[in-house]
Amino acid sequence: MKAILAELVRDLYSHKISPEQALKKLEDYPYEDLGFAKVDHARELKKGTAEVIFGQGKTPEQLLKIAKAILKKGSNLLVTRLSPEVYQKIKARLPGGRYYPEARCLTVIKKKQLEPVGLVAVLSAGTSDIPVAEEAALTCEFFGNRVSRFYDVGVAGLHRLLGNMEEIKKARVIVVVAGMEGALPSVVAGLVKTPIIAVPTSVGYGASFQGLSALLAMLNSCPGGVAVVNIDNGFGAGYLASLINKL
Amino acid sequence: MKAILAELVRDLYSHKISPEQALKKLEDYPYEDLGFAKVDHARELKKGTAEVIFGQGKTPEQLLKIAKAILKKGSNLLVTRLSPEVYQKIKARLPGGRYYPEARCLTVIKKKQLEPVGLVAVLSAGTSDIPVAEEAALTCEFFGNRVSRFYDVGVAGLHRLLGNMEEIKKARVIVVVAGMEGALPSVVAGLVKTPIIAVPTSVGYGASFQGLSALLAMLNSCPGGVAVVNIDNGFGAGYLASLINKL
Amino acid sequence: MKAILAELVRDLYSHKISPEQALKKLEDYPYEDLGFAKVDHARELKKGTAEVIFGQGKTPEQLLKIAKAILKKGSNLLVTRLSPEVYQKIKARLPGGRYYPEARCLTVIKKKQLEPVGLVAVLSAGTSDIPVAEEAALTCEFFGNRVSRFYDVGVAGLHRLLGNMEEIKKARVIVVVAGMEGALPSVVAGLVKTPIIAVPTSVGYGASFQGLSALLAMLNSCPGGVAVVNIDNGFGAGYLASLINKL
Amino acid sequence: MKAILAELVRDLYSHKISPEQALKKLEDYPYEDLGFAKVDHARELKKGTAEVIFGQGKTPEQLLKIAKAILKKGSNLLVTRLSPEVYQKIKARLPGGRYYPEARCLTVIKKKQLEPVGLVAVLSAGTSDIPVAEEAALTCEFFGNRVSRFYDVGVAGLHRLLGNMEEIKKARVIVVVAGMEGALPSVVAGLVKTPIIAVPTSVGYGASFQGLSALLAMLNSCPGGVAVVNIDNGFGAGYLASLINKL
Amino acid sequence: MKAILAELVRDLYSHKISPEQALKKLEDYPYEDLGFAKVDHARELKKGTAEVIFGQGKTPEQLLKIAKAILKKGSNLLVTRLSPEVYQKIKARLPGGRYYPEARCLTVIKKKQLEPVGLVAVLSAGTSDIPVAEEAALTCEFFGNRVSRFYDVGVAGLHRLLGNMEEIKKARVIVVVAGMEGALPSVVAGLVKTPIIAVPTSVGYGASFQGLSALLAMLNSCPGGVAVVNIDNGFGAGYLASLINKL
Amino acid sequence: MKAILAELVRDLYSHKISPEQALKKLEDYPYEDLGFAKVDHARELKKGTAEVIFGQGKTPEQLLKIAKAILKKGSNLLVTRLSPEVYQKIKARLPGGRYYPEARCLTVIKKKQLEPVGLVAVLSAGTSDIPVAEEAALTCEFFGNRVSRFYDVGVAGLHRLLGNMEEIKKARVIVVVAGMEGALPSVVAGLVKTPIIAVPTSVGYGASFQGLSALLAMLNSCPGGVAVVNIDNGFGAGYLASLINKL
Amino acid sequence: MKAILAELVRDLYSHKISPEQALKKLEDYPYEDLGFAKVDHARELKKGTAEVIFGQGKTPEQLLKIAKAILKKGSNLLVTRLSPEVYQKIKARLPGGRYYPEARCLTVIKKKQLEPVGLVAVLSAGTSDIPVAEEAALTCEFFGNRVSRFYDVGVAGLHRLLGNMEEIKKARVIVVVAGMEGALPSVVAGLVKTPIIAVPTSVGYGASFQGLSALLAMLNSCPGGVAVVNIDNGFGAGYLASLINKL
Amino acid sequence: MKAILAELVRDLYSHKISPEQALKKLEDYPYEDLGFAKVDHARELKKGTAEVIFGQGKTPEQLLKIAKAILKKGSNLLVTRLSPEVYQKIKARLPGGRYYPEARCLTVIKKKQLEPVGLVAVLSAGTSDIPVAEEAALTCEFFGNRVSRFYDVGVAGLHRLLGNMEEIKKARVIVVVAGMEGALPSVVAGLVKTPIIAVPTSVGYGASFQGLSALLAMLNSCPGGVAVVNIDNGFGAGYLASLINKL
Repeated sequence: MKAILAELVRDLYSHKISPEQALKKLEDYPYEDLGFAKVDHARELKKGTAEVIFGQGKTPEQLLKIAKAILKKGSNLLVTRLSPEVYQKIKARLPGGRYYPEARCLTVIKKKQLEPVGLVAVLSAGTSDIPVAEEAALTCEFFGNRVSRFYDVGVAGLHRLLGNMEEIKKARVIVVVAGMEGALPSVVAGLVKTPIIAVPTSVGYGASFQGLSALLAMLNSCPGGVAVVNIDNGFGAGYLASLINKL
Repeated sequence: MKAILAELVRDLYSHKISPEQALKKLEDYPYEDLGFAKVDHARELKKGTAEVIFGQGKTPEQLLKIAKAILKKGSNLLVTRLSPEVYQKIKARLPGGRYYPEARCLTVIKKKQLEPVGLVAVLSAGTSDIPVAEEAALTCEFFGNRVSRFYDVGVAGLHRLLGNMEEIKKARVIVVVAGMEGALPSVVAGLVKTPIIAVPTSVGYGASFQGLSALLAMLNSCPGGVAVVNIDNGFGAGYLASLINKL
Repeated sequence: MKAILAELVRDLYSHKISPEQALKKLEDYPYEDLGFAKVDHARELKKGTAEVIFGQGKTPEQLLKIAKAILKKGSNLLVTRLSPEVYQKIKARLPGGRYYPEARCLTVIKKKQLEPVGLVAVLSAGTSDIPVAEEAALTCEFFGNRVSRFYDVGVAGLHRLLGNMEEIKKARVIVVVAGMEGALPSVVAGLVKTPIIAVPTSVGYGASFQGLSALLAMLNSCPGGVAVVNIDNGFGAGYLASLINKL
Repeated sequence: MKAILAELVRDLYSHKISPEQALKKLEDYPYEDLGFAKVDHARELKKGTAEVIFGQGKTPEQLLKIAKAILKKGSNLLVTRLSPEVYQKIKARLPGGRYYPEARCLTVIKKKQLEPVGLVAVLSAGTSDIPVAEEAALTCEFFGNRVSRFYDVGVAGLHRLLGNMEEIKKARVIVVVAGMEGALPSVVAGLVKTPIIAVPTSVGYGASFQGLSALLAMLNSCPGGVAVVNIDNGFGAGYLASLINKL
Repeated sequence: MKAILAELVRDLYSHKISPEQALKKLEDYPYEDLGFAKVDHARELKKGTAEVIFGQGKTPEQLLKIAKAILKKGSNLLVTRLSPEVYQKIKARLPGGRYYPEARCLTVIKKKQLEPVGLVAVLSAGTSDIPVAEEAALTCEFFGNRVSRFYDVGVAGLHRLLGNMEEIKKARVIVVVAGMEGALPSVVAGLVKTPIIAVPTSVGYGASFQGLSALLAMLNSCPGGVAVVNIDNGFGAGYLASLINKL
Repeated sequence: MKAILAELVRDLYSHKISPEQALKKLEDYPYEDLGFAKVDHARELKKGTAEVIFGQGKTPEQLLKIAKAILKKGSNLLVTRLSPEVYQKIKARLPGGRYYPEARCLTVIKKKQLEPVGLVAVLSAGTSDIPVAEEAALTCEFFGNRVSRFYDVGVAGLHRLLGNMEEIKKARVIVVVAGMEGALPSVVAGLVKTPIIAVPTSVGYGASFQGLSALLAMLNSCPGGVAVVNIDNGFGAGYLASLINKL
Repeated sequence: MKAILAELVRDLYSHKISPEQALKKLEDYPYEDLGFAKVDHARELKKGTAEVIFGQGKTPEQLLKIAKAILKKGSNLLVTRLSPEVYQKIKARLPGGRYYPEARCLTVIKKKQLEPVGLVAVLSAGTSDIPVAEEAALTCEFFGNRVSRFYDVGVAGLHRLLGNMEEIKKARVIVVVAGMEGALPSVVAGLVKTPIIAVPTSVGYGASFQGLSALLAMLNSCPGGVAVVNIDNGFGAGYLASLINKL
Repeated sequence: MKAILAELVRDLYSHKISPEQALKKLEDYPYEDLGFAKVDHARELKKGTAEVIFGQGKTPEQLLKIAKAILKKGSNLLVTRLSPEVYQKIKARLPGGRYYPEARCLTVIKKKQLEPVGLVAVLSAGTSDIPVAEEAALTCEFFGNRVSRFYDVGVAGLHRLLGNMEEIKKARVIVVVAGMEGALPSVVAGLVKTPIIAVPTSVGYGASFQGLSALLAMLNSCPGGVAVVNIDNGFGAGYLASLINKL
């Protein structure tokens, strides 16, 4: 930044550029030279070579329009929360797309992706939590992380979790997805010193209150080393796991 | 009941008793013969040879008055939720009482208690949950159950729980006391086929919302075999465990 | 466990087995010899000779696949939360199944069941609570308990409850199912000294808040001897009642 | 109202009063003749010969000032939510006052009260609910209603309630005060066809959530014939019972 | 009751009846002579000459079955919460029925109803609250009360309320139905000394939280003289108003 | 008001009008002369030359009936919360109407509208918030305010907001529409000294709890200068912005 | 802003300033010349000639330190949420300060304030709401607005409100403060077309839930023209009223 | 682990150890050789060379006892949630301890700590959030991380945040602490691609509901890259930040 300003000042002082040109440049400065677009790093990541569309609540037409704009730039594309019904309506017009029904996600890969790095473990407590877990896992993979999956390892069958701990501990970050009583992140956190991102799901009924029960349990996790994202937010967990894994 | 009525009818028919006497008996019938006092079995248990006072919110004078009425009948007495401050004020006037500061309970034993039977395991997740766990354990003991205690065996240190499982499985009923994320009952339920009574505690802060977090987690316990009592209700868990243990 | 270890040690010391064989056995030890699968008792119960599938949210294909795997092992099968619509789609492919529309449950009995034992009383406050009550009752029967049903005995018509109390008292465990104000478990608990499992239902409207009102009322039950399971969790209540009844 | 206007019009037409006098009267009309103060009937009741001060949160000085203004008019006075501490500070300066410590109320009777009429039954579930019940009962008595009290008749000891039903049914209105599970109004409503005003109390702990549990239970009362006032609002129940009883 | 018992005793003593007959009568006593059916007064009202079915959640077949059983006894019938769709399916088989689409109620009048008595005023704040108000009004009329309706008199147009106050004050009981901010009962209570039953409705959106906003406002009504029933519970308000009006 | 009364008095005194005429006028006085209809200013605004119908929950027939009554008076008409489906059913019968699908609003302009005045800025955080923002913007325009729109300027891309601040500051009032974390009003309030009306939307999922999250965030806005309307209440924000802008 | 940049460019081009000086200026530019402090208008208002300290939770020492820093700059000072206890501790060291015990505010006026302009009406429903109302009123006066107060004009005594409407309508903005049922803003909004800022207070008990009841009622206000600030946020309402009044 | 087992097997096979010794070792195996203590990695971190005590709710005696046990092992010690009052009582008996009043933490450093690594940025929105922020910062430092602090950079003064962004971006992990509307983490997340741990605080009043408002806002953070810990849980955030920073 300083360098750009210094150059401009020198050029003006030496009359290489006119006052009008200098003024023009300085007026653009807060948005271009100071680079607020650059400031916008989280989006840059998505917008640069890999972009994401939150599909829920968008019409097929809206999705196609945004997707095409992104693909025209040569970016890779991830669409989350894409129902099979909507996918059926757009798939013919999105050549090269691959749909993951369990994760309810679509990817279109334009640029060859780099070799995946690190390792993110994605755990789900029950089989009903798998869609959210898959959204997290796929997001990690889309952003270039290696992923190992451990599904249906909830506290109702502790031996399955314990039997996998050696593998789970190899990960640099762990995403733990659970509904109902939301106990799994706490149990895992008692067994590892890896950062854990907990994702409550709306799986359950009655006093699960659409995921509130799991959310509160995770926020109160006793062992430490756990942070929580929104209910059913598999993408958010995967994206944050990717940021951490790549440190 | 039928027998009593039949006898009354026979006696009247054979003029052993006068119509006035019969009428008198029949008028008392709903309360004595039909025995509403007997109907009131839960209370009978407490009122017969072992009675309980919920101490919270009662003044020292009120406590003493009720306690003396009970002791006069020769019953054993359990006072729950008795703060040390109040205990100090009444102890001189309740000879023979024994105060358990951790459980915040007082017992006065007038009748020799029977040999304890069965086995109730009382677990606490953290050290801060011990007062509630002790209230449950003491209640069990007061009502004549053998009790084994396993404290500070929460999910943050799973090995302590696992290391005690063999002992815990010996119990006929398990009381599990936990605050914060309330995960312990679910984990235990995944390891045993013993009935579990879960007690959420108000231990925690922030999003524990005075025990709501633990309560919801326990109600949503995935493995099955768990039922829940009110937040901090150690007495209720102990009393129910006693009913079950004595089946 | 000790026995197995002792044998292994003796065999190794006496060179009956080689160090390699011993090592192999010891490495498997945490999962086979220590028998985490055995540890998993609650599941064993379900997985051994009687297994349960939570039907809600599963597709007909998923249900059939899991059901067939279970039946192949010769186990008896209980499917809960099975809507009539899904049942219609799978019934042709599950020969020997019997569907209970009110309980929304399906059973397939492969092994002759043992003579039912003990007695569980299942009460419902209103007629709208019957589906949940039936799920509890059927679960008890599936696991080999005798069941007596008392439906529509809510506090709006106290005489119906009182008129049945003699029969109700014969049970070793009582399951009480109620929506709206959830008062029935408290009233029953005031009349018996039998363990009570209360099931709030989502029956009601407005300030019943989908069962929250009944849930809170049951958790605050004054008489004691009551524990609560999740809203509409008839299976959970029946399963726990079975564990208690069989003590 | 019409009569007053007609008289004014006649008087003006016949020049008994001048236009200025008429105008003066008409301008006052919305507040005096139309009588918005009269419109204000609920307050009139309190302000006329019997006035009420809500004592909570008022300083001794504020209470005395308001009380003296009322007494100067010759009205009878009821002060609710008056703590013993505040009463000690004002009693010397309020001669003729009578303090009811259980109800936390003070009355000063200046005008001889009429013979009480009708009958309001006031029930409390537990002994801890008595202060709220007494506030209701005293309010009824203050406004000239006969009151019969039935305390500690909660569902934990149903026979005490049933044993009093004959007396309770004599009332024209029933006030039922209960905390915890708030089941008593529903049970009473199943036994009578008298209007019932239910008062939830903040008695309880944990999931009673300061009376929310009892409040919801009462709002969902199945039998019908029950309406609910605010938590701990003994005065409100007593005042409404008085309005109904005097119909 | 005493008289019946006395007669039985006399008859037995004088051998008018045999011991067996006496015993038979006494055994029935708790349910017939003590008259638990009579005890059940609220239901008697409904079951005697005028009965009510809560239609919501019942199938057409269930409704018809219950309705026919009631009509066979010669009672008048009120079905509440009856959707037009269900009504279409049953109307051919319920001759003499009259459907009120706004109130979503059906009545079948078998016995000539008595001349309506008293006066209940039913107010609604908005036009969307009218269905609930009509349910209340129709319930009152069904039970033999005169009803005056004042709809769309909410606080957004205070003059409409004030313009009707003179008529409203003629009522012995006032039912006030309001959603959203639920302010109308408080405003009316400030203007009358008539008992008010407030009915919150689920009308509104966003922070109305399906009627919670109106419910809380009504429970906190400042002027006094207001009690509240469940959200959208027009029947409950009408039934209670009827009990009060007929005092 | 005084003038009208004075005239009436003079006319009566001078016998220009008869006592009967005077009485008639005075009886109407509270509703006509005192002008409660005039008092009703908020409605006058809507009812005079520009009226509004809240379309949600109204049938096509109901909408048409109200709309025609309004248009007959020559008023301009705004219908909010009008779904495309309902619009399709009524459009043929509302000639001259213009439908705005994004705002889900319909306007019918009968009277030429005045030149718009002032300036209201309407901001939306995300694209999903635009329907609510458009409802606010259209409401402002309907009531004669100039509007500038700034959509998708949420905190995820701060530079877009900052890049528009100079334009935004030109407004006299700012309406800020946001769902999810509801942070935008706080950020804007930290940058301007213009009054801000914040509108939480139900956009989001999980712990957004249908807009509760955004609502609470806005109520707690730290910088000051922010007030909040109901969730999704675009009309309310636009109407209030119009009142303020026209000061 | 442009002018400053243009001057800098000209000065540099004409060598009036050196490149180093220009660079220095440009580097400061985002914070001084671009004037983020100026951008920060809401704060400027407070920091310029009139600054505000939120006193709650600050120690006497912290308060004094901040206050002195402000006063040193010659600004006028408003301290809100200042308890009498803390005021007693700091008053000797804040000469010229004036404490308003009802509003719990302190002002120190260093600069002569301009003649107050416009008119803000501040209404309170009850006497207990006055502290919050006074905080709002005092805030308005501190920022140079004329204020008219109308206290204790809640819906329990509608005539007092109606009797003041003519005066209230003279205001350009109305602040309405109410606890309990929070009905007053809705009633006022039905009578005026003035912008209304509603302030819920935590006054009440039981189901008022510390102001939640009033908050929800105000957010659901039917008549329109109402926006809401945080519970007990008298300052926020006064500050926003000031912004609006000065438009 | 394998190595240890292999050695044991070899020793037994070669009769270096007796069967009894082998058995003894193997029986201890689950706790020592299998090393559940090692499994317990999160605790190892704390228990090894750096241990933590959660001070809240512990008596001075309890604290001292635990602290001394830890220090005897030569570990460094961190006590969180230690009030000044309790610190005063224990400081004489904990030589070498250093108390941080703002963070309410105590550290005792026995082992020389390693050079801190990486960089964690800790931001607070307001000055009242600083205690929680300091707890997070101190925790990071205690576990060997470099920390940069940015306090009072909330959205009310956006320029202060923007002016620090260049520094903030240097961190590998960012902890953002905010109460009230909880907007800061979302704003920061829109400006960086660094993992963010958000800590809601209970700072605020009214509708902040003791931190619930901030908690919900943070869970709904739009930009992505944010995870949340419990309200006021500065330690949890610092500990997780340390785990991430050290990857």
